Amino acid sequence: MSAILKQRVRYAPYLKKLRTAEECIPLFQHGQYLGWSGFTGVGAPKVVPQALVDHVEKNNLQGKLAFNLFVGASAGPEESQWAQNDMILRRAPHQVGKPIAAAINSNKTQFFDKHLSMFPQDLTYGYYTMDKSNDLLDYTIIEATAITEDGAIVPGPAVGASPEMLSCSDKIIIEVNTATPSFEGLHDIDMPEHPPFRKPYPYTSVDHKNGLHAIPVDPSRVVAVVESTTPDRVPDPAPSDETSKRIASHLIEFFEHEVNAGRMPDNLHPLQSGIGNVANAIIGGLADSSFKNLTVWTEVLQDSFLPFFETGAMEYATATSIRLSKDGFKKFFDNWDLFSKKLCLRSQVVSNSPEIIRRLGVIAMNTPVEVDIYAHANSTNVNGSRMLNGLGGSADFLRNAKLSIMHTPAARPTKTDPTGISCVVPFASHIDQTEHDLDVIVTDFGLADLRGCSPKERVSKIINKCAHPDYRAQLQDYYDRALFYCEKKKTMHEPHILKDAFKMHINLQENGTMKLDSWDVKF
Amino acid sequence: MSAILKQRVRYAPYLKKLRTAEECIPLFQHGQYLGWSGFTGVGAPKVVPQALVDHVEKNNLQGKLAFNLFVGASAGPEESQWAQNDMILRRAPHQVGKPIAAAINSNKTQFFDKHLSMFPQDLTYGYYTMDKSNDLLDYTIIEATAITEDGAIVPGPAVGASPEMLSCSDKIIIEVNTATPSFEGLHDIDMPEHPPFRKPYPYTSVDHKNGLHAIPVDPSRVVAVVESTTPDRVPDPAPSDETSKRIASHLIEFFEHEVNAGRMPDNLHPLQSGIGNVANAIIGGLADSSFKNLTVWTEVLQDSFLPFFETGAMEYATATSIRLSKDGFKKFFDNWDLFSKKLCLRSQVVSNSPEIIRRLGVIAMNTPVEVDIYAHANSTNVNGSRMLNGLGGSADFLRNAKLSIMHTPAARPTKTDPTGISCVVPFASHIDQTEHDLDVIVTDFGLADLRGCSPKERVSKIINKCAHPDYRAQLQDYYDRALFYCEKKKTMHEPHILKDAFKMHINLQENGTMKLDSWDVKF
Repeated sequence: MSAILKQRVRYAPYLKKLRTAEECIPLFQHGQYLGWSGFTGVGAPKVVPQALVDHVEKNNLQGKLAFNLFVGASAGPEESQWAQNDMILRRAPHQVGKPIAAAINSNKTQFFDKHLSMFPQDLTYGYYTMDKSNDLLDYTIIEATAITEDGAIVPGPAVGASPEMLSCSDKIIIEVNTATPSFEGLHDIDMPEHPPFRKPYPYTSVDHKNGLHAIPVDPSRVVAVVESTTPDRVPDPAPSDETSKRIASHLIEFFEHEVNAGRMPDNLHPLQSGIGNVANAIIGGLADSSFKNLTVWTEVLQDSFLPFFETGAMEYATATSIRLSKDGFKKFFDNWDLFSKKLCLRSQVVSNSPEIIRRLGVIAMNTPVEVDIYAHANSTNVNGSRMLNGLGGSADFLRNAKLSIMHTPAARPTKTDPTGISCVVPFASHIDQTEHDLDVIVTDFGLADLRGCSPKERVSKIINKCAHPDYRAQLQDYYDRALFYCEKKKTMHEPHILKDAFKMHINLQENGTMKLDSWDVKF
Repeated sequence: MSAILKQRVRYAPYLKKLRTAEECIPLFQHGQYLGWSGFTGVGAPKVVPQALVDHVEKNNLQGKLAFNLFVGASAGPEESQWAQNDMILRRAPHQVGKPIAAAINSNKTQFFDKHLSMFPQDLTYGYYTMDKSNDLLDYTIIEATAITEDGAIVPGPAVGASPEMLSCSDKIIIEVNTATPSFEGLHDIDMPEHPPFRKPYPYTSVDHKNGLHAIPVDPSRVVAVVESTTPDRVPDPAPSDETSKRIASHLIEFFEHEVNAGRMPDNLHPLQSGIGNVANAIIGGLADSSFKNLTVWTEVLQDSFLPFFETGAMEYATATSIRLSKDGFKKFFDNWDLFSKKLCLRSQVVSNSPEIIRRLGVIAMNTPVEVDIYAHANSTNVNGSRMLNGLGGSADFLRNAKLSIMHTPAARPTKTDPTGISCVVPFASHIDQTEHDLDVIVTDFGLADLRGCSPKERVSKIINKCAHPDYRAQLQDYYDRALFYCEKKKTMHEPHILKDAFKMHINLQENGTMKLDSWDVKF
């Protein structure tokens, strides 16, 4: 037992349950229901999942030792190895990485994506374990960075769904990560309550704390404590390119306009921002802007937020995970006193809570796969069928925000056409965000303010402000034909020609570009 | 001035502003922004709108005296007359009735439907009046059943969006309805607060009251008080037929199953139920069932709820409107002491609040136009384009409920085919509720419990339990072909063949039935 482990585990009875990861392997059986801690690639268990995948590889157990796996959002690289070794029968509610997406899209893994605020409570309702005899998770494997005197778990850089998983898990395995500093003091954790006993969440500002500093567990359910020295491994952040900078600049101009019109205070409202280079450019742009005293209420904090803390442009940030690169975490720990006073991590039920997002008037910003001319958005499935990463918290935020914004490049390249994919289409091939949820769509070409617009009024804004010029005439042509078609039928609320609605997608599948020779083309 | 009016208006200065409806006509100009009280056809202003439509008809002002009209949900028959006389330039967020739908579908009225919980707050943010110089509604015309000593307005059978409209209206016209008893004491009203000053709603049970009994207004903005003796006029409720009774019986069996499994208490959770004969059959079925001490948290109470109060099966109900037929209102007023202790009316921001719906664990039940094999639902647009009534509160409830249920007949008739329309389709032609929002779909043929299912797992349940037998083979054929098509492309998360996805709808448009000769048919 390392000295640091003994220091971190302040509840002595757990030390009697100390095991190696390999010693845990016999606990696992094919078909079990497992919860993992973790959110957006950090804070997930590492050494037990690694030992299991090594065991599967060594003994050729691919497909024979496989699990129903639930993680708050995505886990670390071990999840990808599990996917590559056919160890994931079922997965929810979000995932990231090519191997797991490949397993889903080849029908090896049954995946469903669910609102990140809703998933943990549905789990505690027993909705995902209805077919089991005891309706509990068999094991939750949770990463801790410390254990309190009463056996409660201090998470690391992610709270995620751990409170709910631990509350409905038959047995618990704790990985105490001694390679990372303890995150004690950084969390504010609400434990689940069920209807009809739920109370209001009291939070009325991003820095309002009212929860626990650690997750209580029933020690009798803890079957093993394992030391881990594997750090979180997050890729370096995607750099901002010209496209993402143009998107960010349109948005910042819009925020200034809203403040001038009196619809937002000088320091805006709390910001939510997704993952990716556009999100990074926006946060970078805001850090460099004249906005001061900003706040953040989001699900994940990334490297791009660090300058925000340092310059003082941001007063306080809250999320359910802090997902930093190696350099980012180093900077974070080196400046612990600064950062730890300016942020807290909550459960994803709270960070993504419709209640609090609506109360605070959050400004939500997320990237879609595509939007359509009436402002429906696809967040998940390319060409209607191929799963990318999942819904995440996009709909928690976009449905409830005071300003609901989707930002995307106007076009993306295919192998044969640098603008072969238009991110504005006649009819989104999968719909995760409805026309009733979005206020603003912004691309590198401009910003469409859709508030108060009827569907038909949205069309010209979206085509003329947002669509790539290569596609404007084609999209306008679709709309003009649809108007004419629906005028005869008196169905002009949201004019469509259903037999043409997906032709751009079909042409992409068959010819590698969304550019059509004519809307009369037959497939 | 009638004696009853003098009794109802307890704030004397208003009596100096007494006008006839006709005297108000000169206040109105083409293009103004108007708010009306009312929700689901009750509680709307009557005599001023009637005077205006009479004025338009008499002076042939159709299209020349027209307005941007906002009502919490639908108003009364005067709204239909306005639509018939081209008096509605713009309308949100919900409407009911053939004339207004016809105006929308013929592009005379720009309509947008918006979540009923979100619409009033977006109005107060100025999102719908951005193009105006003062960003206020020009007039709100509100029906009152009494005026308090400080000039506050006691609404009638609907609270709706009135608190928000009055808070952001330049001038106010009050119609005091003396044909109906005063509803004083029946309301619990929260006035709007803006971020960052919002507090939690304290409500933790359906009978929890913490609001005001009347809506405060600035008396200086009240420009006219008009006596109204026009009662609310609601059609008699749609009778339950065999189809709706079968749907109700599947649902009640499911509730019993959930209670037995320990996932719900004996008295269920608070119920939300939409409008229509299926909803009526469910409420009727529950009133006749063995369930006791039920509660209701919904947006509208209808005639079908009255026996529920009388038998004592229901403890308490809350909504934003009570929409009764003539006989229903008579019964209600005759038993005021009984009913008024068992219900309260709140603003629609509160009745439809995601915060409270989620906290209470509401059971939400609504009727779609159609659902698809992956459990997306269309609540609004027939064949993707023709507006029916609007979204209403369906998505407020279905997104946040503990159990999200859509109920529909499996098939509907066309002129030439008694089952010409399948309510289960490959791809919903408009999507208002996403696959991430629905737990259960039920038709007259059966109930599909979709909790925890991947998209592909949902398909067989929906086809085999819910679809009409006339369509099962055809839908299965679509899915089998889509699986085969997507297997090659490794896009099997949610298999679709986009060129076939809408063929059932196109065939309906062209041939009057969704029954296809073959999936290879070309259009």
